[in-house]
Amino acid sequence: MTENSSCSIRTVHFEPDNIDIIVQNGANLMEAAVAAGVHINASCGGAGVCGTCNVIINNGMVESVRTDKISEKDYEKGVRQACKSNILSDLNVEIPAASRLEKAILSREEMLSTSTIAVGWKYDPPVKKIYIELSPPTPQDNSSDLSRLLKELTRQMCIESISIEPNTMKKLADTLRAGNWKVTVTTLLDLNSGIRLIKIEPGDTRARHYSLAFDIGTTAVRGQLLDLNRAKVLSQNIDYNRQISYGEDVISRISQSQKTGGLERLQKAIVSTLNDLIKKLVDEAGINTNDICHMVVAANTVMVQLLLSLNPKYLRLSPYVPTANVFPPVVARSLGIEISDHVQLNTIPCVASYVGGDIVSGILGTGIFQREALTLYIDIGTNGEIVLGNKDWMISAACSAGPTFEGGGIKYGMIATSGAIEGFDIDPENYEPIITTVDNAKPKGICGSGLINTAAILLKNGVIDQKGKYNNLPSRRIRKGYNGYEYILAYAAETQIDKDIVLSEIDIDNLIRSKAAMYAGYYTLIQSTGKSFSDIQQVVIAGTFGSKINIENAIIIGLLPDLPRNKFIFIGNGSLLGARLTSFSSELLYQGQIVAGMMTNLELSENKEFMDNYLAALFLPHTNADEFPSIKTGGI
Amino acid sequence: MTENSSCSIRTVHFEPDNIDIIVQNGANLMEAAVAAGVHINASCGGAGVCGTCNVIINNGMVESVRTDKISEKDYEKGVRQACKSNILSDLNVEIPAASRLEKAILSREEMLSTSTIAVGWKYDPPVKKIYIELSPPTPQDNSSDLSRLLKELTRQMCIESISIEPNTMKKLADTLRAGNWKVTVTTLLDLNSGIRLIKIEPGDTRARHYSLAFDIGTTAVRGQLLDLNRAKVLSQNIDYNRQISYGEDVISRISQSQKTGGLERLQKAIVSTLNDLIKKLVDEAGINTNDICHMVVAANTVMVQLLLSLNPKYLRLSPYVPTANVFPPVVARSLGIEISDHVQLNTIPCVASYVGGDIVSGILGTGIFQREALTLYIDIGTNGEIVLGNKDWMISAACSAGPTFEGGGIKYGMIATSGAIEGFDIDPENYEPIITTVDNAKPKGICGSGLINTAAILLKNGVIDQKGKYNNLPSRRIRKGYNGYEYILAYAAETQIDKDIVLSEIDIDNLIRSKAAMYAGYYTLIQSTGKSFSDIQQVVIAGTFGSKINIENAIIIGLLPDLPRNKFIFIGNGSLLGARLTSFSSELLYQGQIVAGMMTNLELSENKEFMDNYLAALFLPHTNADEFPSIKTGGI
Repeated sequence: MTENSSCSIRTVHFEPDNIDIIVQNGANLMEAAVAAGVHINASCGGAGVCGTCNVIINNGMVESVRTDKISEKDYEKGVRQACKSNILSDLNVEIPAASRLEKAILSREEMLSTSTIAVGWKYDPPVKKIYIELSPPTPQDNSSDLSRLLKELTRQMCIESISIEPNTMKKLADTLRAGNWKVTVTTLLDLNSGIRLIKIEPGDTRARHYSLAFDIGTTAVRGQLLDLNRAKVLSQNIDYNRQISYGEDVISRISQSQKTGGLERLQKAIVSTLNDLIKKLVDEAGINTNDICHMVVAANTVMVQLLLSLNPKYLRLSPYVPTANVFPPVVARSLGIEISDHVQLNTIPCVASYVGGDIVSGILGTGIFQREALTLYIDIGTNGEIVLGNKDWMISAACSAGPTFEGGGIKYGMIATSGAIEGFDIDPENYEPIITTVDNAKPKGICGSGLINTAAILLKNGVIDQKGKYNNLPSRRIRKGYNGYEYILAYAAETQIDKDIVLSEIDIDNLIRSKAAMYAGYYTLIQSTGKSFSDIQQVVIAGTFGSKINIENAIIIGLLPDLPRNKFIFIGNGSLLGARLTSFSSELLYQGQIVAGMMTNLELSENKEFMDNYLAALFLPHTNADEFPSIKTGGI
Repeated sequence: MTENSSCSIRTVHFEPDNIDIIVQNGANLMEAAVAAGVHINASCGGAGVCGTCNVIINNGMVESVRTDKISEKDYEKGVRQACKSNILSDLNVEIPAASRLEKAILSREEMLSTSTIAVGWKYDPPVKKIYIELSPPTPQDNSSDLSRLLKELTRQMCIESISIEPNTMKKLADTLRAGNWKVTVTTLLDLNSGIRLIKIEPGDTRARHYSLAFDIGTTAVRGQLLDLNRAKVLSQNIDYNRQISYGEDVISRISQSQKTGGLERLQKAIVSTLNDLIKKLVDEAGINTNDICHMVVAANTVMVQLLLSLNPKYLRLSPYVPTANVFPPVVARSLGIEISDHVQLNTIPCVASYVGGDIVSGILGTGIFQREALTLYIDIGTNGEIVLGNKDWMISAACSAGPTFEGGGIKYGMIATSGAIEGFDIDPENYEPIITTVDNAKPKGICGSGLINTAAILLKNGVIDQKGKYNNLPSRRIRKGYNGYEYILAYAAETQIDKDIVLSEIDIDNLIRSKAAMYAGYYTLIQSTGKSFSDIQQVVIAGTFGSKINIENAIIIGLLPDLPRNKFIFIGNGSLLGARLTSFSSELLYQGQIVAGMMTNLELSENKEFMDNYLAALFLPHTNADEFPSIKTGGI
């Protein structure tokens, strides 16, 4: 590990997390671990007195003093207190079980995804802040401000060249002097054109270094504000995609974009959604918008093209050609996003017209492209996307499930925000419901996961039949409404909306068609490769309501295949996961292009097998009962 | 020369011009020569019947048929008709004297500079147009529009990667289809970030491919519209730099820029100057502004920083630090320049606060950095700049000559536009003047070269003495005016301005101070290197009025050193020459950084020798007559 010996940067590899981080020479090892998202015990807060942060240096050199917290024997073996060690070379560091702080600072979503996250990526954000101290110019050394800065910057970064943005140039001379020749620069890695200097600030501003990750869905948009110093989510939020007023699915959005001014209207709608979310994220985290340095967006191909003002017309005309798979980064401000003008927006690459960056982002974030195991990756959403494969090959497909799982097409459907009915059970005696809602608020509607849970429980208890029709049961909850029979989930007086919240046969019918499309999608994909469900070693469920779905209920209604339950892994929003990790890792920014490039797309829209499989799946759980051996329906 | 055998591009080297050009395989050799600016006779216009375009293929392969215009013996020696030969490999082509079309299409300025132009540069513009025919997508091959385009483009250009501008992306899908998958793309070489695709047009638009070269002087701005297909100047024009209303020299411009809104006002002033010039250039050439693809600007450091909105404050504060030497290219439109938004503006690199891109451009264009000969390069202008050196070393200096040579500080001074008195002689009997003016228009004022000629002739004829004072002579032309004695160059009735055009002692005094600053500048520079005037093998005179200056007269007044006259070469506007050649040659774009980097700057502003030399030069021609042995003054 001598190749960097002339440099001032060091790579620290943490075991068993298998995470690398790049730091300055002399950096504190405890701080490096925190920055890398590696969790080490430190009950004394780094004072060196608790002795709980012991690590083993397997390779490399640290500067450290032995205290009575480490025996002489251990010290010889390489045990050191992380909080008392400064990094002097590239390191290989092992964190023994006793020092591991399991899951302590992981959010719920992060907990779910730890086991399936991409491995081996370095914590090495594409956008970095670097603090620089320069010697002021003298009559003997009056080289230009830019030469002076770049000389030191290229030395510190161990790179040959770096380019500077015109806007940064304008601030260069005054900022260097305002900071008394001590400044913080922000650099951006552009995969095509190398490193660019995008911002300069007086003094040391490294502590304020944030980015944004977004998943732009057809129905909902989810965002996270990230602390780039700690690889941590500071705040997250969700909102409807305001393009909804121009149509519920991607096809209607494309139609709308062809009207006069349509593309512009749709572009403005998504940008205003993003702008409001950014405000909320910033407010919640209590940071300054100007300290945001980067944005990563994962979205399906249509959403990306609309965001970037790229005419999506040809996405829906055979042979379904997107403008690009790999979209060049753009200045976020140029799209209308209300953020500093140095912020670059990267989009995760797409595969085809209907297999977008959201799915690539999920594959990227979960590391499926790095593993042996044959994995079925399912992203349940308005545009359902499926990938089958492993590190050697991947095949993808898209099927239009419709907006049902986001609450669309359902009379009282809504996204999973406060007041959405999520959990559902029934009193088998009188068929009275037991509901739980998001935030335990008064009910306002029903979200996708609530819908699946409700339909499954109603089916399991014989309230509806396998066609999704209400049986004739003695319950005040079941009544005939405008849309055929319906079940009253909550009476008007109990709700936020002063209306009975009901689930009608029309709603259930929409659900059946959506789940049939999803099931037919993966069935057809597996068929096409000559495999069967039993070959699948792992099913990764991503998607907007992934982590809230009840696996048993999803199998009961035939949305998921009837496989051993331990094969299912829920990773929550895979699209957002990949976007977030890309903001943390230059390596993943690069791998995104590789992953998109290795996927073969199977076009389902004109596929006969898919249509047959779809028709066979229009039943609860399926017309072929052998497909769901573990499910008994039609009553308890 | 087999390294490019798998590529479709070929390099053709022309002797004795020593010029390379890059062309498509199969291109016609005559057309390649025209594009390279190599002039071959072809009296039949390429029909192959005149036999005047014979060339010798010294190396490489062409496809050609022998006609009776070439003997069998000559054919075996490699003689071919250029108009009948297609290029099949890299070539080394010799143009025999009989086939050379000397100076035929060279403008006056180009004629002057042919002998001293940079050698060995390839005609290979940084901005290229490339015509591409793609196969349309099919269901079997529905890769994205961008992948399809870049695959073919990188193949044709023999490069690995290319990035695309967001604005080009927006037009990509529709343009490919509008052109029925036949399009012309414009690519830009960015030295820092590689090749970028900046424009796409349907069909074959290669014939319309233009660029702009500008020399932005403190007083005057000169522009040329260039045909990038023929390496030819289509139109040229000149105007005052509108910043003049904010001060005549760079110091007063810097002061002005420190006032509230000052920098913005100055930036707008130069941009409006450029915009008006662009309109004139485009109108004269009869082309469409949208077909301009590139701009190259050479200017002194202050002018560059004002153009790019870079605070010039620190340029005049010790230790005189510019914001940058190498300025990154910017989108011309972002500066307010009224031109298509894909046009990139490159500035020629600078050396120091007062040795700018104008001088680097001149050194670049004249190829002084490539030669053995010790050369003194003098750019006479408001900010006089001097370089001494050769291919091994270069030292530069700047001296503030003031605006005299551009007509500033002279009561009836003007730049060399229509009506400016340029030529001057005198009837020794009665001291009546013989004047010539630019465009032979009625006199309007006197330009820099006219001023030198007039002062020299007046001195030579004893009308003024060596201090620049009028002798008491019997002539109606000499009279006492408000500013001491003056000589009437033209009576009011003969002029365009209805005023007597006179040259006063104050005017002559200004001229003496300006020429003294220049002379002291090169004297000090030569002294500092331990050399003397006799070591100088070549004196290259650049500058705004370079090609119009009368060498003898300039020596008579002591503006130029008294060296053998054959050592002087006038290259006209060296700054514009370098900018133009840079627009024709990627190699020179790159070399500009090298040349700027190899110059050592000598600061004259606080140099005692310079002050002494200046005071000694405040005399016509000099206080030390030994410096000017060939000059006899004080009467015929």
